Amino acid sequence: DGGTVESLDYEVIENYAYREEQAQRGRLYMYYAVGVKWFFALLIGIGTGFAAVFINISVENFAGWKYSLTFSIIQKSYFAGFVVYILFNLALVLSSVYIITHFAPAAAGSGIPEIKGYLNGIDTRGILLFRTLIGKIFGSIGSVGGGLALGKEGPLVHTGACIASLLGQGGSTKYHLSSRWLQVFNSERDRRDLVTCGCAAGVAAAFRAPVGGVLFALEEVTSWWRSQLMWRVFFTSAIVAVVVRIAMGWCRSGKCGHFGSGGFIIWDVSDGQEDYSFMELLPMAVIGVIGGLLGALFNQLTLYITNWRRNYLHKKGNRVKIIEVCLISVITSAISFGLPLFRKCTPCPEADINAGIECPRAPGMYGNYVNFFCSSKKEYNDLATIFFNTQDDAIRNLFSAKTIHEFSAQSLLTFLVMFYALAVVTFGTAVPAGQFVPGIMIGSTYGRLVGMFVVNFYKKLNIEEGTYALLGAASFLGGSMRMTVSLCVIMVEITNNLKLLPLIMLVLLISKAVGDAFNEGLYEEQARLRGIPLLESRPKYQMRSMTAKDACGNQKVVYFPRVVKVSDIVSILRSNLHNGFPVIDHTRNGETLVIGLILRSHLLVLLQSKVDFQHSPLTGDVGGTLPIRHNLSEFVKPVSSKGLSIDDIYLSQDDLEMYIDLAPFVNPSPYVVPEDMSLSKVYNLFRQLGLRHIFVVPRASRVIGMITRKDLLIED
Amino acid sequence: DGGTVESLDYEVIENYAYREEQAQRGRLYMYYAVGVKWFFALLIGIGTGFAAVFINISVENFAGWKYSLTFSIIQKSYFAGFVVYILFNLALVLSSVYIITHFAPAAAGSGIPEIKGYLNGIDTRGILLFRTLIGKIFGSIGSVGGGLALGKEGPLVHTGACIASLLGQGGSTKYHLSSRWLQVFNSERDRRDLVTCGCAAGVAAAFRAPVGGVLFALEEVTSWWRSQLMWRVFFTSAIVAVVVRIAMGWCRSGKCGHFGSGGFIIWDVSDGQEDYSFMELLPMAVIGVIGGLLGALFNQLTLYITNWRRNYLHKKGNRVKIIEVCLISVITSAISFGLPLFRKCTPCPEADINAGIECPRAPGMYGNYVNFFCSSKKEYNDLATIFFNTQDDAIRNLFSAKTIHEFSAQSLLTFLVMFYALAVVTFGTAVPAGQFVPGIMIGSTYGRLVGMFVVNFYKKLNIEEGTYALLGAASFLGGSMRMTVSLCVIMVEITNNLKLLPLIMLVLLISKAVGDAFNEGLYEEQARLRGIPLLESRPKYQMRSMTAKDACGNQKVVYFPRVVKVSDIVSILRSNLHNGFPVIDHTRNGETLVIGLILRSHLLVLLQSKVDFQHSPLTGDVGGTLPIRHNLSEFVKPVSSKGLSIDDIYLSQDDLEMYIDLAPFVNPSPYVVPEDMSLSKVYNLFRQLGLRHIFVVPRASRVIGMITRKDLLIED
Ligand SMILES: Nc1ncnc2c1ncn2[C@@H]1O[C@H](COP(=O)(O)OP(=O)(O)OP(=O)(O)O)[C@@H](O)[C@H]1O
Ligand SMILES: Nc1ncnc2c1ncn2[C@@H]1O[C@H](COP(=O)(O)OP(=O)(O)OP(=O)(O)O)[C@@H](O)[C@H]1O
Ligand SMILES: [Mg+2]
Ligand SMILES: [Mg+2]
Repeated sequence: DGGTVESLDYEVIENYAYREEQAQRGRLYMYYAVGVKWFFALLIGIGTGFAAVFINISVENFAGWKYSLTFSIIQKSYFAGFVVYILFNLALVLSSVYIITHFAPAAAGSGIPEIKGYLNGIDTRGILLFRTLIGKIFGSIGSVGGGLALGKEGPLVHTGACIASLLGQGGSTKYHLSSRWLQVFNSERDRRDLVTCGCAAGVAAAFRAPVGGVLFALEEVTSWWRSQLMWRVFFTSAIVAVVVRIAMGWCRSGKCGHFGSGGFIIWDVSDGQEDYSFMELLPMAVIGVIGGLLGALFNQLTLYITNWRRNYLHKKGNRVKIIEVCLISVITSAISFGLPLFRKCTPCPEADINAGIECPRAPGMYGNYVNFFCSSKKEYNDLATIFFNTQDDAIRNLFSAKTIHEFSAQSLLTFLVMFYALAVVTFGTAVPAGQFVPGIMIGSTYGRLVGMFVVNFYKKLNIEEGTYALLGAASFLGGSMRMTVSLCVIMVEITNNLKLLPLIMLVLLISKAVGDAFNEGLYEEQARLRGIPLLESRPKYQMRSMTAKDACGNQKVVYFPRVVKVSDIVSILRSNLHNGFPVIDHTRNGETLVIGLILRSHLLVLLQSKVDFQHSPLTGDVGGTLPIRHNLSEFVKPVSSKGLSIDDIYLSQDDLEMYIDLAPFVNPSPYVVPEDMSLSKVYNLFRQLGLRHIFVVPRASRVIGMITRKDLLIED
Repeated sequence: DGGTVESLDYEVIENYAYREEQAQRGRLYMYYAVGVKWFFALLIGIGTGFAAVFINISVENFAGWKYSLTFSIIQKSYFAGFVVYILFNLALVLSSVYIITHFAPAAAGSGIPEIKGYLNGIDTRGILLFRTLIGKIFGSIGSVGGGLALGKEGPLVHTGACIASLLGQGGSTKYHLSSRWLQVFNSERDRRDLVTCGCAAGVAAAFRAPVGGVLFALEEVTSWWRSQLMWRVFFTSAIVAVVVRIAMGWCRSGKCGHFGSGGFIIWDVSDGQEDYSFMELLPMAVIGVIGGLLGALFNQLTLYITNWRRNYLHKKGNRVKIIEVCLISVITSAISFGLPLFRKCTPCPEADINAGIECPRAPGMYGNYVNFFCSSKKEYNDLATIFFNTQDDAIRNLFSAKTIHEFSAQSLLTFLVMFYALAVVTFGTAVPAGQFVPGIMIGSTYGRLVGMFVVNFYKKLNIEEGTYALLGAASFLGGSMRMTVSLCVIMVEITNNLKLLPLIMLVLLISKAVGDAFNEGLYEEQARLRGIPLLESRPKYQMRSMTAKDACGNQKVVYFPRVVKVSDIVSILRSNLHNGFPVIDHTRNGETLVIGLILRSHLLVLLQSKVDFQHSPLTGDVGGTLPIRHNLSEFVKPVSSKGLSIDDIYLSQDDLEMYIDLAPFVNPSPYVVPEDMSLSKVYNLFRQLGLRHIFVVPRASRVIGMITRKDLLIED
């Protein structure tokens, strides 16, 4: 379905309107524009920070009410508690799926594949709209609060990107929330930079990992990364960190309900294992391999299921989507409540006053050692400790140090299998869903399992199961998402322990390598499924022996003459779906000359405004004193929306008989490559510069000049 | 002096030798090559790790001997101690300057400007040779061990880059240490990737900051960063971290002499201030401003002095350089020993058993509270604590928490002024010298000063002077070096405290902004001074209104015909210094056609080997079955050395009468731009793809095909 997907133009289109604006503005305006960019980076940071705080407070409060209610009821009746628990979850999930299906369909899922696509140069319809933002925020409160096997991190990244994009286009025009004053960014390049900031801000907010955020954005958008952008992204992330910190400080005084004790992801393992012996590298490598295998399997399973959903289930309409999610919610609640019931409780370990960990934990509080369906007061249910809990809390328990032998292998295995299955099934339903936290859950479970074996085998005191859980989490994420540097930094930032960095690095490298042997990363697979054609950073092998001409096949280029009849424009535009056309002129001595590239969207603007129509097919005087009939901003297409279509434009019979001189509106210098350049070089050019169209032209007949480094060293 | 500076060719030159090799090798070879790349990344990591360990152990041992000797002597006579101290330092410094002046002149200074230049695309002669590596390692042991106001971090980065480059060319040919087996990398692109790894490894080793290393390399080489490279760089850094960790674990048992207690930079501030109030942001911003000002001043002063040295002092030969360094060494020793003598000792603070800090410290050990020239045993000399100490130790003392009121404002101010002056004067002398550690010294001194005022002003207990010292260090480095993200991560990694990240970020942003108002970063200034023409990431403002043709001026392009007489080649090559020439052919109907670009270095190889000479000016059959007379590796220029020159080649009179058909040797598809493309676009193309030559050609007469994203989505 190439129809719904459009490429972005990262190129500056140097048509006359642009040149006019450049000439008018001068240098001072440039400083102003830079100032605005920084101001926007600030706003994005603040906005994303607040969105994250809002989502977290809401989720924590819903979850807190839910668990305290359930716990107080099960003191009397387990069955009544079970029903209340299921209904509470169902209500939250229902609200989420309702928002998604009826208000903001583009807000379903994690949004990261789409954002990745956007940064790679593909505009997916609907992903950066105001309603998507709203749907994402409220939808993920419902789905995460409702206890599904999904996280809020992917949605937060999407939220950050939406905020950035909306700021970039000066608010939402549809909801009359826009402001002319804010509309300074007229090029898709500026907007993409803003979205990059937003994306980093989202990661920074989701994980409280500012450096991780910068690197995440970086790993995805390497193609047009510039150091100024890096700096701005960095600034945005720092702002997010400060906003979140201030909000949490404010909440610490108890003003935010249940929030404050749990909330933002920070699984501090700073009192974990500091030293590791050489022998431990082997079990750690094993964790890496397991992570690679389970991650690749996860990608493959979710791919099948999503495929099936798209082609079969979700075609049946919204009702089916809602029923599906509700069913999954009930199953999830039933399993997480029911399974621990079958598990025999364990007596609390000897009280260790130094560690300061209570067993069982005080009712309704966060902590280890949940007393659930136990006969004695001095017992705890290890399965309930991870299953009947918010995910954040469960992870904290799995990561926790000084709680050796807390979990039995049997419970961990049960949990691993059940949760893995739930995560696979939940993925791709019509609710906002992130895969980070579920991934960490899965990974830390088998990590802790491996850790238990290591502890039993080596019998050393300084080995902590929690550290292995952390490595397991990293390995699963690496095996599924295949990010390396950013993931590593995020793991370090969320666990607040720099000493484990080399271990995390090595585990990630192994799990990514193993995963890569089977399939692509989760986001790439999903993007492909959604018809988002991501360009990888590296040209394919066979491109080395192909030329640019081979890539074009024997296509007949659709072009426009410089002065063209309106009716011809209409018929050409109707006859194909191309978005860019070369414009050809004739010189005095009858030779042809390529004068530039015209975009379909610009042609449509010209057809709609009609001011450039002329009666005769004579050419105007380009470059001279053209009357300025267009503002640069008229040519800008709104982000992630359909834009104009040729069918929307009404042209009278008289209009159709008129002519337009296209010369002032073309991009006069699109990138060109000679026909026999190897395709891998063309690929690099295309991807590094973030292009949309390249002209393949015959070899030149002469060289007018050479440009080397020296020619580009112009002093201010 | 454009003569000594050459650009690097990042482009793959698809001449016939390359195409032959590609065709022969097939896909399996590609996997082999990838394997070798990873293996080399491993070797670089191990090599750099060991180099770092070696340098650190040596420096720590020399410094340890020096201080324990001096301390034992001053028990009897301060004057004898003074003389021994000066002589010890002088001997070390003398060995260093001797190595540099007589053996490896390219190893002077930090090397970072040159490495930065290399990654930007400029090859400076001599910087990546084996002798430079040796000179750098031993020279920096002498200069750092000798107590000069410089650090070993810049040199370590250079060391890493040298190791990588030597590996990449398969060892040093000059010293017969090369191996054919290792010579797999035939393109400058591969080598540059290796050097990127080496550079990251150097940073990772210097600061034990693996993520910081990745980011440092990244900030410098953003133009051709690819995610595979990122991954490999990351791997190298992780290896370095592991190697260093293993070595330190091994040393902990006391096998490395004085090393083990001090050594690698890790100034743990994890027990420092965790919380900061909103009000504290103001003094922190002040620190940022001071950092910007002092950093910019540092850059400016060092610029003047270096300029003066280059144009005047160092022209007088090696003797002057040696005398200069020795003089500076004596002055430094005299000041660091002498000034504390004038300082009155302070009584030790009330013993605080919890903090576990001894006062005065045990003689000869590392720690706070140095008893130096004090009348009582229970006193310490606060100036000696920072001045009469290794820099690493002094920084540890400045950063230390729980030692409030340890330093008097007077001492700190004295130290700041003296050390700043010493650092400025030492910069640019003929010894290996890094600016990181001196920068941290300077910054943390004024940071701690500000911290003292804050403590006095706000009178809050949780405010730690050490934290302000850390922020001061970050601010000075930011104000001088102007890196942001990588510096921030490095600061966090060396201080092992993630909680301070947002503060460090904000301070860095302020200090960089303030510094940028005055001048360029330290490395950029120095690179410019050395005639290394760095291309910034952003085109200059006026390039927007210039075209490609404007940049060429009215230069007359020097070109070669396809079949050319040897004597013509010689005369053309002698007539200019250009390194690339278009090759023009004639079609049957008499039109000209640009068939590619030939490099001077390739022409010289052809002239030297003579195997391609032919008697008649007839063209061969390109693309057909050419006899393979050249191996791709023959065309590769050795790194950072002069390469062939036209004067080195002897050609007989018969040779000069022969012809060469250049067609098989040209790069058939260099990048071309139409003459009226705006120069800022050309700039982006040039810089993003790391090019060396661009052809400016006339507008095309027709478009053969369009390439869009869809054409590049070829499945494997
Ligand atoms: N003006 C044109 N004339 C002929 N073929 C074209 C033209 N533009 C694009 N093509 C070819 O048509 C195929 C489909 O491209 P498509 O029309 O989707 O490009 P586009 O819509 O201009 O760009 P995108 O879809 O990336 O936004 C490609 O193979 C491309 O090479
Ligand atoms: N073949 C050529 N004919 C004419 N002018 C050239 C040619 N090559 C380069 N120039 C011009 O000469 C000037 C000096 O360039 P220079 O000769 O140093 O380039 P180079 O040596 O080929 O590349 P570099 O110095 O970057 O390695 C530049 O302005 C450049 O445009
Ligand atoms: Mg299209
Ligand atoms: Mg040159």
